[in-house]
Amino acid sequence: MDKSHLQQLVTIAGEKSILTAKSDILCYSYDSSLESQLQQYLPSAVFIPDKAEAIPPVMSFCHQHAIPVIPRGAGTGQAGGAVAKYGGLIIDLSRLNRIIEIDTDNLQVIVEPGVVHADLNQALAPLGFSFPPDPGSTKMATIAGMISYNASGMRAMKYGTTREYVLGLDVVLSDGREIRTGGVACRSLKTVSGYDLTKLFVGAEGTLGIITRARLKIMPLPEKKGIAIAAFNQLGDAGRAVVEVFRNKIVPSAIEILDKSAIKAACLYKPSIKLPTDVAAVLFFEVDGPAAAVSYQAQRVAEICAPIAAHVEWTDAPEQVKVLWEARGVVGAASGRVRPGATRVYIGEDICVPITNVGAALEGIQRIGEKYDTIIVTYGHVADGNFHSAPVIDLESEEEIRRVRLVANEIHELALMLNGTVTGEHGVGLVRDQYMEREHGAALEVMRTIKNALDPKNILNPGKMALGGR
Amino acid sequence: MDKSHLQQLVTIAGEKSILTAKSDILCYSYDSSLESQLQQYLPSAVFIPDKAEAIPPVMSFCHQHAIPVIPRGAGTGQAGGAVAKYGGLIIDLSRLNRIIEIDTDNLQVIVEPGVVHADLNQALAPLGFSFPPDPGSTKMATIAGMISYNASGMRAMKYGTTREYVLGLDVVLSDGREIRTGGVACRSLKTVSGYDLTKLFVGAEGTLGIITRARLKIMPLPEKKGIAIAAFNQLGDAGRAVVEVFRNKIVPSAIEILDKSAIKAACLYKPSIKLPTDVAAVLFFEVDGPAAAVSYQAQRVAEICAPIAAHVEWTDAPEQVKVLWEARGVVGAASGRVRPGATRVYIGEDICVPITNVGAALEGIQRIGEKYDTIIVTYGHVADGNFHSAPVIDLESEEEIRRVRLVANEIHELALMLNGTVTGEHGVGLVRDQYMEREHGAALEVMRTIKNALDPKNILNPGKMALGGR
Repeated sequence: MDKSHLQQLVTIAGEKSILTAKSDILCYSYDSSLESQLQQYLPSAVFIPDKAEAIPPVMSFCHQHAIPVIPRGAGTGQAGGAVAKYGGLIIDLSRLNRIIEIDTDNLQVIVEPGVVHADLNQALAPLGFSFPPDPGSTKMATIAGMISYNASGMRAMKYGTTREYVLGLDVVLSDGREIRTGGVACRSLKTVSGYDLTKLFVGAEGTLGIITRARLKIMPLPEKKGIAIAAFNQLGDAGRAVVEVFRNKIVPSAIEILDKSAIKAACLYKPSIKLPTDVAAVLFFEVDGPAAAVSYQAQRVAEICAPIAAHVEWTDAPEQVKVLWEARGVVGAASGRVRPGATRVYIGEDICVPITNVGAALEGIQRIGEKYDTIIVTYGHVADGNFHSAPVIDLESEEEIRRVRLVANEIHELALMLNGTVTGEHGVGLVRDQYMEREHGAALEVMRTIKNALDPKNILNPGKMALGGR
Repeated sequence: MDKSHLQQLVTIAGEKSILTAKSDILCYSYDSSLESQLQQYLPSAVFIPDKAEAIPPVMSFCHQHAIPVIPRGAGTGQAGGAVAKYGGLIIDLSRLNRIIEIDTDNLQVIVEPGVVHADLNQALAPLGFSFPPDPGSTKMATIAGMISYNASGMRAMKYGTTREYVLGLDVVLSDGREIRTGGVACRSLKTVSGYDLTKLFVGAEGTLGIITRARLKIMPLPEKKGIAIAAFNQLGDAGRAVVEVFRNKIVPSAIEILDKSAIKAACLYKPSIKLPTDVAAVLFFEVDGPAAAVSYQAQRVAEICAPIAAHVEWTDAPEQVKVLWEARGVVGAASGRVRPGATRVYIGEDICVPITNVGAALEGIQRIGEKYDTIIVTYGHVADGNFHSAPVIDLESEEEIRRVRLVANEIHELALMLNGTVTGEHGVGLVRDQYMEREHGAALEVMRTIKNALDPKNILNPGKMALGGR
């Protein structure tokens, strides 16, 4: 962006809303992905609107001058989606964080893009409701970030992903035009009127428009939760247990897995956690619903797992549920502990495979780690085959960085070989675009056609998702 | 289509697959909508492929010569979506009706487009699984028809619509190119890799491509079902009861409503059905899940409704559930009975409003019926505010036809006034395109941009959804 454009932007947006000093914009040059931490993607400027109406004129100006625009929430993404690959203007939406309306009678809320997920659920909990998608980054991730990457987390198998809960969006298009998807005045929970543009903007990673408002479906909170834990000597047995539970007509609200390395990490992080350490994997089954169903289902899951598992327990006592669940809760933060002084990095961290390939995927990841002499802690959402593998490396070692990139590539290749996908919930961004052609074949051309139709100048988050660079 | 084109089509597709005799193609000139029964939309020819591979060359040919192509399943649609507004070629997909693979371990099936919904669920039931969307036309509707209109039916509030269960599609594009959405080799349940093209083709009413194969998510069947029935003296009370049930953290698998006229219709149709006839509406709450939860929830729903309702009962005894559910089951077929010799017609039959406007919508529909001296039977899926109002008219009377069109228009206007939508699950087709501009505002232009990008010659089901005529 040249100086005169920048000057004009300041005039349009107001001086207080535009950051240009390097010290101010440095923290916008990366997200949680390893790649963006190794290579600095510095924007030319950052725009922090304090109201949604400030965005269209800025967008129009950028369109006129073909300046890249990159929407950004909390920067918790792990795919480099919210960094400026080709410079330009980052729009930081985090100040637009008002919950505009809570309408429990109609099972919906209206929010600004920068509302933090945990804040929304904190506001809903006393009313007995929740916005069910539940990413690990709940305390930081913004709603529009979740929408842009179709975040899901632990409860997607039973409750679906973010996409299923987005009823309508206000979007500023690449040329500054404003639209509302899902009907301009609509407040109903269902519609098949016209193309479902809402669902297209969900998961579009900011390449089709800037989300400035969202109408979301909410659900009554379940009455109660229960948990069953089962430990397995073979990874394949864990996969079989999951299949058996579904066969027995039980749909848990979450099924989480910790492999050997993740169990070790959790125990090192918090020695009070009691997990069997001599097993290949532990499964956590969460069940929810009316109290009577919860006890029954938790116990049934334990019974179903018993013949296959090395160890089983279950509870529906709230305090005990919390204790048992803790090991799963800490594993993300704990991953680094398996190697003192080293760092858990986000790369190749989000593959998703069919349930029957869960065992093969976990074994494959361990094998890849051994091949490249890299410690990998793996945990994830086994109900839908989505794993987060966490390499733990010395960030000062160029050799380890070289190796971890090979690790990530092989993990992605493994996912595709196992009829999976390179990303279950984190997105493509700039770190997984090289797999798009192979994963999607001719369909990638259709994605590019849509991108080109809605953003012919390719100014919205360019260089992401293999949709075309500059 | 001129004679030479037709001759070439016969050569490409094979004589046995192309119908041109008027007697053969007459039944393709309408669907279930009143409009298509009043005005004949005759195609130039009908193509009935016996394998999916036969479609791309035909599509290429039609693209080359700008011949309209209209995909069609069972013709059960109620919006004129599957008729040839501008002549051209109908592709009848009903012979492509193989269930290609049932993969319960991975919670998915792969089917051809013409598989009938009930046939799929009949194949899944002995295995303990189901494809949850449940349209009233289950015994006729094809899967690709359900996908093209995003069918849902009674269980959408708890289980979602067809869209939520479509994991991937094989699609022939307007120029004959073939793509597979959701990943060419993917069999996982979740992915955020690239734009979600799958969800865009769902609900596109055949205007973006021809669906030739679908990969669908299935779910374990619930262990048990229960039912609670509550009768109300005021329509508004029925709406309040629904809100109260959600507030009590109960998510029924279905909440159905019959208004006064629908109760009358059901009782006339089957006198053995015992429903209170002196009330404004009856609500049917279906709950499902583990046995213990079902009794508890059915009873709780009854308790919650009791203070508001005139009459309440509940059961979880399978035989009794069937008996109580019967009244809801027959109401569609029964509608005509309220006026002997007259016919139930499909027009203005699918509005959807916010839950809090359910009472106002039902009262409004009754008022409109009185204004135009037209009997309207109304029932529907009250959990998501979706009503099917059934005018019962003398089809021989031009005056009644004139009036019922005014009725439908006012019902659609009412829906928009009540922050609803003109169609909850039946689609826009050619009968609701005049409301698109008002319902979607500037977003309609974006739909047209996408349509134009993917079908620049506008040959795929032209003249539907307000996407442009010829």
